[in-house]
Amino acid sequence: MSEQPELRRDPITGRWVLIAPARARRPIALTGHAPHARTNGERFPCPFCAGQEADTPDEVFAYREAGSQPNGPGWSLRIVPNMYPAVQVEPAEFVAISAVSVLESAPAVGYAEVLIDCPQHIDNPTQLSNQQFRDVFRAYRERMQALAADSRLAHVAVFKNVGAEAGASLGHSHSQLISTPIVPELLRKELTGAEEYHRRRGHCVYCNMLERELADGVRVVARSEHFVALTAFAPRFAYELWVLPVGHQPRYEAISDGEALELAVLLKRVLRSLDDCQHLPAYNWFLHTTPLREGEPPYYHWHLELTPRTSRPAGFEWGFGCHITTIAPEVAAEQLRAALPPS
Amino acid sequence: MSEQPELRRDPITGRWVLIAPARARRPIALTGHAPHARTNGERFPCPFCAGQEADTPDEVFAYREAGSQPNGPGWSLRIVPNMYPAVQVEPAEFVAISAVSVLESAPAVGYAEVLIDCPQHIDNPTQLSNQQFRDVFRAYRERMQALAADSRLAHVAVFKNVGAEAGASLGHSHSQLISTPIVPELLRKELTGAEEYHRRRGHCVYCNMLERELADGVRVVARSEHFVALTAFAPRFAYELWVLPVGHQPRYEAISDGEALELAVLLKRVLRSLDDCQHLPAYNWFLHTTPLREGEPPYYHWHLELTPRTSRPAGFEWGFGCHITTIAPEVAAEQLRAALPPS
Repeated sequence: MSEQPELRRDPITGRWVLIAPARARRPIALTGHAPHARTNGERFPCPFCAGQEADTPDEVFAYREAGSQPNGPGWSLRIVPNMYPAVQVEPAEFVAISAVSVLESAPAVGYAEVLIDCPQHIDNPTQLSNQQFRDVFRAYRERMQALAADSRLAHVAVFKNVGAEAGASLGHSHSQLISTPIVPELLRKELTGAEEYHRRRGHCVYCNMLERELADGVRVVARSEHFVALTAFAPRFAYELWVLPVGHQPRYEAISDGEALELAVLLKRVLRSLDDCQHLPAYNWFLHTTPLREGEPPYYHWHLELTPRTSRPAGFEWGFGCHITTIAPEVAAEQLRAALPPS
Repeated sequence: MSEQPELRRDPITGRWVLIAPARARRPIALTGHAPHARTNGERFPCPFCAGQEADTPDEVFAYREAGSQPNGPGWSLRIVPNMYPAVQVEPAEFVAISAVSVLESAPAVGYAEVLIDCPQHIDNPTQLSNQQFRDVFRAYRERMQALAADSRLAHVAVFKNVGAEAGASLGHSHSQLISTPIVPELLRKELTGAEEYHRRRGHCVYCNMLERELADGVRVVARSEHFVALTAFAPRFAYELWVLPVGHQPRYEAISDGEALELAVLLKRVLRSLDDCQHLPAYNWFLHTTPLREGEPPYYHWHLELTPRTSRPAGFEWGFGCHITTIAPEVAAEQLRAALPPS
């Protein structure tokens, strides 16, 4: 079989998946059930640490000391192509996707990148300084804006895996960006649901939800001037968190440097509380924002979702899409508020 | 907080979840990464074994020797209420669900049941005799038909978790039934997709897909007179399998005893091959069939899906709904065919 990654669409549900044979060669430094694995891998030096720049592909973006050279020392954050990409720019030619067959597929064109949060071997994002944490959010913005120039792309998915149970293969704190010629299913579902709500009621569903959440307070974990962190009303995992801008804002790219710092400080406090309440759980966070070519819709509101691995999805979840949790989000919010470090 | 389980709907996507505090008390005999855990638990005798009938709630269905008493010896298969239910019939009154608020919830009325496959402590379904395996499929049918009498229910979800990684908390081979007043999301998505396809093209999408799959052959793993096992064209996990009746059949309940045996024999062969190729992977299987009150639609075709835990979903999967696998289903099918035991 070719190594070229492929996008395939399920003929019934329309769900897209990626088949990426090259990812089978990933080195896996994290194994076992240790939630945040705190080791530096066993079989190789960490390729994300300072001094190991030659172990990654050439950087495509970095924050660096003035005068320092790409792929040399002096960086505080780097973005590099993923060595084991789920999507691939070259050598595939771009093929427009068209529904000509019941079984539809296309080359998975796009960029798969790794954002290395910091030069030190930190494996828990709460150990990042406020400035480092802010720079992660600034870099998300910069890279999304840069990738928008490639007109073949429909979306840039930004996410972070922390801990082996959450799918991280290396411990060194990092995020990932996967850009694709399609809008991924769960984001499309949100966009569609939000648009329908707006058509029916004339409001952004997120704004309406926030109004009610802020009035109730029962699921509010923390808030700052422009952001609020909530436990999700209908969570997939216990302690699932959503962080949203309080004011309506469809696009993440609009975040200012000051707001990026505010978001970083808020999220760091909430993560410390979560680490405390759930003993360093593994988790993912992911950014949901309006796709590249879809303007500034009045119905969509960017936000960050965070799903801790507090349970193991089984047949009811995988087979029917219905998640079962045992801790109500109101109980989780109360615990998280109680464990929140001072701001 | 009350122990009463609750159904909640995500205000944006409409995704239903269950919040079931009682399930937090589940005993967990299976832990760790051992795929099929082969132990009998550590802290208690297995409650599903012959002789331990008093450790489960009273049976609601069983295959038994003539003259034997309920909840005593002499059974070959039992269905009992789940002691840690995700849904609950009593004491909640049924409340019809209506979209009165942006944040919608309802008591999770329904039956959560465990189907104990056999009296012996077997933890791998391939160790069931053909007759025992057949009886599992017969009992699915019987219980779905019986639960249909409760007019509050919209659907009976039937699934099986094998191995700790797939969410099983006890090793003794068993299935689960969870019936709900709503149709779960993934099934509704299939129904909607299949209905749209039928409207556009006048055919059942599954029948069309099968026609092409049987002609191509590249993803066919095994077939019998009435059934075929395929690797999924757009899998969520490597080695994902679908088993479908070859002829159009919207409802699982229509399966005959003879077809149940045929399905059992076919699936057992495929599972042996999967166990061999992937070294006893953990997996789930789940039955997708037309909901209780939706007749016999020309567009829907019941089937069994089987998802092995061949990878750990991470941020791209959980955050965007886009699964990445590294082994193409054509490669997986070839391996599975090669390892298939004789029929």
